[in-house]
Amino acid sequence: MLTHLDEHGRARMVDVGEKVETHRVAVARGEIWMAAETMNAIRDRNVPKGDVLATARIAGIMAAKRASDLIPLCHPLSITHVQVDFMFRDPDEAHPQPWLEITARVEAVSRTGVEMEAMTAVAVAALTIYDMAKALDRRMRLMNVRLIEKHGGKSGDLLLEP
Amino acid sequence: MLTHLDEHGRARMVDVGEKVETHRVAVARGEIWMAAETMNAIRDRNVPKGDVLATARIAGIMAAKRASDLIPLCHPLSITHVQVDFMFRDPDEAHPQPWLEITARVEAVSRTGVEMEAMTAVAVAALTIYDMAKALDRRMRLMNVRLIEKHGGKSGDLLLEP
Amino acid sequence: MLTHLDEHGRARMVDVGEKVETHRVAVARGEIWMAAETMNAIRDRNVPKGDVLATARIAGIMAAKRASDLIPLCHPLSITHVQVDFMFRDPDEAHPQPWLEITARVEAVSRTGVEMEAMTAVAVAALTIYDMAKALDRRMRLMNVRLIEKHGGKSGDLLLEP
Amino acid sequence: MLTHLDEHGRARMVDVGEKVETHRVAVARGEIWMAAETMNAIRDRNVPKGDVLATARIAGIMAAKRASDLIPLCHPLSITHVQVDFMFRDPDEAHPQPWLEITARVEAVSRTGVEMEAMTAVAVAALTIYDMAKALDRRMRLMNVRLIEKHGGKSGDLLLEP
Amino acid sequence: MLTHLDEHGRARMVDVGEKVETHRVAVARGEIWMAAETMNAIRDRNVPKGDVLATARIAGIMAAKRASDLIPLCHPLSITHVQVDFMFRDPDEAHPQPWLEITARVEAVSRTGVEMEAMTAVAVAALTIYDMAKALDRRMRLMNVRLIEKHGGKSGDLLLEP
Amino acid sequence: MLTHLDEHGRARMVDVGEKVETHRVAVARGEIWMAAETMNAIRDRNVPKGDVLATARIAGIMAAKRASDLIPLCHPLSITHVQVDFMFRDPDEAHPQPWLEITARVEAVSRTGVEMEAMTAVAVAALTIYDMAKALDRRMRLMNVRLIEKHGGKSGDLLLEP
Repeated sequence: MLTHLDEHGRARMVDVGEKVETHRVAVARGEIWMAAETMNAIRDRNVPKGDVLATARIAGIMAAKRASDLIPLCHPLSITHVQVDFMFRDPDEAHPQPWLEITARVEAVSRTGVEMEAMTAVAVAALTIYDMAKALDRRMRLMNVRLIEKHGGKSGDLLLEP
Repeated sequence: MLTHLDEHGRARMVDVGEKVETHRVAVARGEIWMAAETMNAIRDRNVPKGDVLATARIAGIMAAKRASDLIPLCHPLSITHVQVDFMFRDPDEAHPQPWLEITARVEAVSRTGVEMEAMTAVAVAALTIYDMAKALDRRMRLMNVRLIEKHGGKSGDLLLEP
Repeated sequence: MLTHLDEHGRARMVDVGEKVETHRVAVARGEIWMAAETMNAIRDRNVPKGDVLATARIAGIMAAKRASDLIPLCHPLSITHVQVDFMFRDPDEAHPQPWLEITARVEAVSRTGVEMEAMTAVAVAALTIYDMAKALDRRMRLMNVRLIEKHGGKSGDLLLEP
Repeated sequence: MLTHLDEHGRARMVDVGEKVETHRVAVARGEIWMAAETMNAIRDRNVPKGDVLATARIAGIMAAKRASDLIPLCHPLSITHVQVDFMFRDPDEAHPQPWLEITARVEAVSRTGVEMEAMTAVAVAALTIYDMAKALDRRMRLMNVRLIEKHGGKSGDLLLEP
Repeated sequence: MLTHLDEHGRARMVDVGEKVETHRVAVARGEIWMAAETMNAIRDRNVPKGDVLATARIAGIMAAKRASDLIPLCHPLSITHVQVDFMFRDPDEAHPQPWLEITARVEAVSRTGVEMEAMTAVAVAALTIYDMAKALDRRMRLMNVRLIEKHGGKSGDLLLEP
Repeated sequence: MLTHLDEHGRARMVDVGEKVETHRVAVARGEIWMAAETMNAIRDRNVPKGDVLATARIAGIMAAKRASDLIPLCHPLSITHVQVDFMFRDPDEAHPQPWLEITARVEAVSRTGVEMEAMTAVAVAALTIYDMAKALDRRMRLMNVRLIEKHGGKSGDLLLEP
């Protein structure tokens, strides 16, 4: 016998040992679409579970620090900065409902980029908003979680949206 | 002095001690929109980091178990079942791009529902897919993460989508 | 050879399998002594790192859920309620400085008491306050972290302070 | 299109929601084979990093509580008892070297067995012993980690070794 | 609409990307006040749950490594040294009861100080002592957890107590 | 009074602050002995819980990132590469049963070696295999988990096995 396993598709953490540590930045953004009454309740701090955005902000920041613990092949690194911001938005052509915009900016001095940290911060902040307000509105949905920009590393600057 | 803080908006974990333990089910679903080449690479297991869906499935299952550790006011509970499924989808009227559908079903015997566990499984599976394939396609986006159905508890059955 | 180790002093998690699940409550309390300017900055939300009490409340709630992960022989259990409250206090006979009082109430339906969950919530909320305000005042100190009351279980009610 | 993924081999957490909670016990055991001088240093508490067995016992107990967080498809449950014991052993027919025996007993009232909790406690206690003593002996090896007995649940009692 | 949220009081992790990595040291200290019989039981290793100080030392060291996971805005960093020490103390003018002194020293090569790691080590070691001995004495209290000294970084040396 | 504790055997995390960061590699290996039918089921992906090796590989990689969180005195560090491989093996003189060989390679740029990360990856991958296949074969055993080679650091290269 002595059969080597077929290694096609075998998961492994990419080797970044040869990369140099540089200043890295990533910005990710997402949206939560919700009913107008839900948005009003969040804005007016009338949600029974408490201040939705303050809680979601903390959850997003803490999740950024745990990205490599949640995502199997994500490299661990020491974040130097995280910021999570929210903006209330009216319906428009692309958005049939009121929506809350979540933006996370993460920075580090590291061998790999911090996109996953920023994406994780947005996703977990959004999940927290869902959790806080779900008694009011179970039809909220998380939309358009995506990378907006990244800086640093060999691939240089990438600006996907203005 | 001796000023009580204004308790308006104060976050707290809702008291569920009076609720009875019942069989709970929640199903959540989400999508990742991606380029056709990205989807082909995932389906053909040609992504350099390894088998994308097998890795994302494990990440989603593990994240379901950690929902209460990530989401500040989410109650801890002991999950009895988690399943995460994927389906490749062609563009259609509502989807200008090929998309991958992620569905998570979570069950427990508990005092609270398991919506957050199912939503977290979908979100973390999606983040993992983004991480695995981001070298191919940084413009993937996570869409339509929402609750599909829930069963059990005082509020009974809720079927949001067929 | 075949020497049994001296088992004197050997740590072990106490067996609670024979105990019945009952409704458990514990209340713990602690204080942070600080300079008057520090307290003013916290109350007026003028601390550069952000809203101190909202952040500390979330940290305390999340830490209660993790008590058994931090404290080696503490039994895991599923908390049904956590509440963390703060009160600003003036100096008095027992307190030469202004002080912030932290109270945590934890409940569960469990085989063991929830004292450690309540004590951990107070301690981590206090550490968070120290972290948020330490640039203003490195001499803050955490005082009088203690159990106030507990209910449920074989030992019944215990009221250590009015 | 609309291709169902081949679901052959798809990982999922087995549904245990129909099982009843019963008293569960599992005992696992393992060995570390080491040089005679290493064993002497451990027994005499002459290892520079500190008391090897006290540290390994705590690590094993804490790891038992985290088994479902480490092992992807392992069900979370609330342990009611953990005990980790060590015994120094002389070489014999089956053991060409001195060896340290590690035994972990775990109990819970749960829907699934606690074998993985007991196996994890043994493995992490052994890893801790390796870590504490590796400066003395890098050739230590972990041997014979296996299940000894289990009780409770539908499959009843299982006694694999006397 | 398009209302920017009021950003007053918004929590964020301070940007330390511009700081240089230097050798950092922090020493924190705290006390547990207890009945004389409790102290005797701890010292004589007569506490039923096991060796109190060995367990608390491990808990404190492990907690130092997790400070940034517990405290929302605390930066992650890689600790290079942790030490936790205990000293039994008699009552004196400032201490009406026997007390146990806990001192934690933490070091790192990092962009931020390690005060929170040292403070967390003291607090969690103290919580562990409470947990181990609470069956003997529920009136123990944690006192005077404070920073003693810090070294390294732009602010230089700070010696708060001799 | 004022009794210094006997500090003999006191656990502490070794100070590595003076060491320089160098490229570190460690390779660890282990075996799982099992029945021929069990091995066939794993190889043919006929195990009801799902693809055993894909799941175990992910579990091993994630565990490598958590070694310092599991092992009390293990230093935290940022891994740059992890790879976990499996090979099916026939019985031979040293192995009375079919066996599955697990090899983990871990790299980092760090002040300490990565032996514990590699050993932990092997152990947790093995525990996962046990968990996935235990319904088929409760007599599997984990054997020969040991360090194979290490590179980097003051002690230089160490090749324990060819």
